[in-house]
Amino acid sequence: MADAPHVVIIGAGFGGLYAARALARKRVRITVIDRKNHHVFQPLLYQVATAKLSPADIASPIRSVLGKYRNVQVLLDEAAQFDLTNKKVTLKTGESLGYDYLIVAAGASHAYFGHDEWSSLAPGLKSIEDATEIRRRVLLAFEMAEREALINGKRPMLNFIIVGGGPTGVELAGSIAEIAQKVMAKDFRGIDPTRARVVLLEAGQRILPAYPEDLSRSAERQLRKLGVDVLVGRAVTGLQTGKVLVGDEVMASNVTLWAAGVKASPLGNILGAPTDRAGRVMVEPDLSLPGHPEVFVVGDLAAITDKSGKQAPGVAPAAIQQGKATAKNIWRSIKSQPRKPFKYLDKGNLATIGRAAGVAEFGRLHLSGVIAWIFWLTVHIFFLIGFRNRVMVFIQWAWAYFTFQSGARLITGNTDLPGGKPNG
Amino acid sequence: MADAPHVVIIGAGFGGLYAARALARKRVRITVIDRKNHHVFQPLLYQVATAKLSPADIASPIRSVLGKYRNVQVLLDEAAQFDLTNKKVTLKTGESLGYDYLIVAAGASHAYFGHDEWSSLAPGLKSIEDATEIRRRVLLAFEMAEREALINGKRPMLNFIIVGGGPTGVELAGSIAEIAQKVMAKDFRGIDPTRARVVLLEAGQRILPAYPEDLSRSAERQLRKLGVDVLVGRAVTGLQTGKVLVGDEVMASNVTLWAAGVKASPLGNILGAPTDRAGRVMVEPDLSLPGHPEVFVVGDLAAITDKSGKQAPGVAPAAIQQGKATAKNIWRSIKSQPRKPFKYLDKGNLATIGRAAGVAEFGRLHLSGVIAWIFWLTVHIFFLIGFRNRVMVFIQWAWAYFTFQSGARLITGNTDLPGGKPNG
Repeated sequence: MADAPHVVIIGAGFGGLYAARALARKRVRITVIDRKNHHVFQPLLYQVATAKLSPADIASPIRSVLGKYRNVQVLLDEAAQFDLTNKKVTLKTGESLGYDYLIVAAGASHAYFGHDEWSSLAPGLKSIEDATEIRRRVLLAFEMAEREALINGKRPMLNFIIVGGGPTGVELAGSIAEIAQKVMAKDFRGIDPTRARVVLLEAGQRILPAYPEDLSRSAERQLRKLGVDVLVGRAVTGLQTGKVLVGDEVMASNVTLWAAGVKASPLGNILGAPTDRAGRVMVEPDLSLPGHPEVFVVGDLAAITDKSGKQAPGVAPAAIQQGKATAKNIWRSIKSQPRKPFKYLDKGNLATIGRAAGVAEFGRLHLSGVIAWIFWLTVHIFFLIGFRNRVMVFIQWAWAYFTFQSGARLITGNTDLPGGKPNG
Repeated sequence: MADAPHVVIIGAGFGGLYAARALARKRVRITVIDRKNHHVFQPLLYQVATAKLSPADIASPIRSVLGKYRNVQVLLDEAAQFDLTNKKVTLKTGESLGYDYLIVAAGASHAYFGHDEWSSLAPGLKSIEDATEIRRRVLLAFEMAEREALINGKRPMLNFIIVGGGPTGVELAGSIAEIAQKVMAKDFRGIDPTRARVVLLEAGQRILPAYPEDLSRSAERQLRKLGVDVLVGRAVTGLQTGKVLVGDEVMASNVTLWAAGVKASPLGNILGAPTDRAGRVMVEPDLSLPGHPEVFVVGDLAAITDKSGKQAPGVAPAAIQQGKATAKNIWRSIKSQPRKPFKYLDKGNLATIGRAAGVAEFGRLHLSGVIAWIFWLTVHIFFLIGFRNRVMVFIQWAWAYFTFQSGARLITGNTDLPGGKPNG
């Protein structure tokens, strides 16, 4: 086995993990490198951010997911440089690692459109740490308002502003409105949590722009029913402590969250190939790097347009398909067979809006409300990695559904709210 | 109700929480102040530190635990000063709050015997944040050793040293040995986690000094069976990065944990009454402050010796009994009835040593091994606050027991190990 080809995979998100799994039974040596020790089930990250699930419910240790494959080794580290000529990756710790095939699946993070100083004012949602930071800010805002009300007898304002009307923004807004309405309501004495204002700001003309128009409208209706103010055509022009600026308008905000854009990992540029505006690597039809058939880019870091002219979106199913396709192409190359171009199979789109509401699109089939939510529930429990997590998450959801209790309402870390006290 | 006596409770640990509950049905107004939003079930904190349970499994939001009592309000804040003459508490945020009765239940934290600089070298275990920090260091040590082994072909040393052989030290040592032996074993390629060395250092002549001697010996035997090196009569004289000094001996250590001593909250001194060597307030037989019958001190912050000359220990059952007794005495005073002195009822002691092992003492009944462990399991599940937590914890334990899987092996926060790389 020591002479088997060495496949190095950078990143254990959906793309990297599924590539590793698909190659794990073959005669290759695999090294998976990630800067975290855990794979995150990103579609449920917003549930950690809104205190419905615990971090461990949606994250599994990478080496435990891949533990049964004897030809896979896992390193907690980060890629710093690539030497494509000599087929070597230099790690952050200074060591370097040779490869025969390289899969770069380093994903994307949130983008502030050149305003990196906004990141502390409005955190985005990409990691477990992001999720617990958002949870901390949301829960702390209620606590601070309660203290103000009880001690000073004031009736403090409580505004949550979510910037960006894509799936993450919609799910965060729906989920925050829901905990304010249902979970928090009976636990406070000085404030009335049901009077909290949740605002979803979208720069474009409708929320969920990647969905069919009827579902955008339905999502908007369902959000309004939960009490969310959906404001479209409003581009954020500035963020300040406790304030969101939209043109001339100044909106007071206790907690501002960012769900407005993503940019690809800087590893894309380090690879030296052309990238698109979002920093994604323009790959060949087989997802390989131009000029380097032994190097592949998959997932959110890859820009690929298939024959029909449609680009694979930055969602988990696309990354999974790319990871699997790349594993197959590497195995074809090892067996000296011709590779196949990647073809994206659009399996539809799903988003939830709180408890028992949502929208779903499977080609011409468009679903709304409870049915969409049941679809969402089934699909997400089915795909959660690790059997224990499935059972746990199902129990917690069932518990939360029937009791309106939210299980993970912990404020950890410090109890100051940077930039969270509105001046309004 | 606005003219009902106002009871202010500082701290929502066991003492404060049980006092609040016992008074909640009476005609009083209650304000509970804590610097965290959650009550922590401290006896299970070591299970979070060793990745067996998630933080939310052993912590409940204080306002959710007390939410059903309409006469209880909860403030996320901290007491900074007391004006005993005018019956006012000044909070950290600068506001002050009047009271008719005051219960100070601020607990204790770990003590480094005048070496506060050791705290970053050897974290102790008192809060959820402490537990996730210990978890981070323990898991990271395995990851760093694996990287060293895979990249450099070295066989790195992997030493865990726990300072202090009380219940927390015993439980941490047993639990770390167990994850090394059972959980980690199959997930690593370069290192053999079963060869990790776990050392329990105790300055006195036996571990679990508060237990009967036969149980100390049994605990030591059970720990050795798990592979723990139990070293008694070894007082730590110094800590350095990657090193523990015991007299002339230098022990290399990847992760050092502190379970050697506690000191009472600084609020004890601020109250102005005499304190003992550990900073605990010397209270009257009814737990009130000398000269201030309207102020009570309960739990780990109180030093009380009953008629038989035995001091109430710093454990959860003692704090619970004190909280309840104080609630009753306050209600007696309101009804102009005479108070009763506090009497500690020793219900016994329980400690676990990994999976299906432990020691228990109920007066003359001494139990060891599986039976002690089953007792421990039953008692802890029964007393966990919040029904959801009981179900969750039971399922996770059952899962971990039958599969040897540990559910919450997440490294969150940064992936550098301060002071964790041994120089040995």
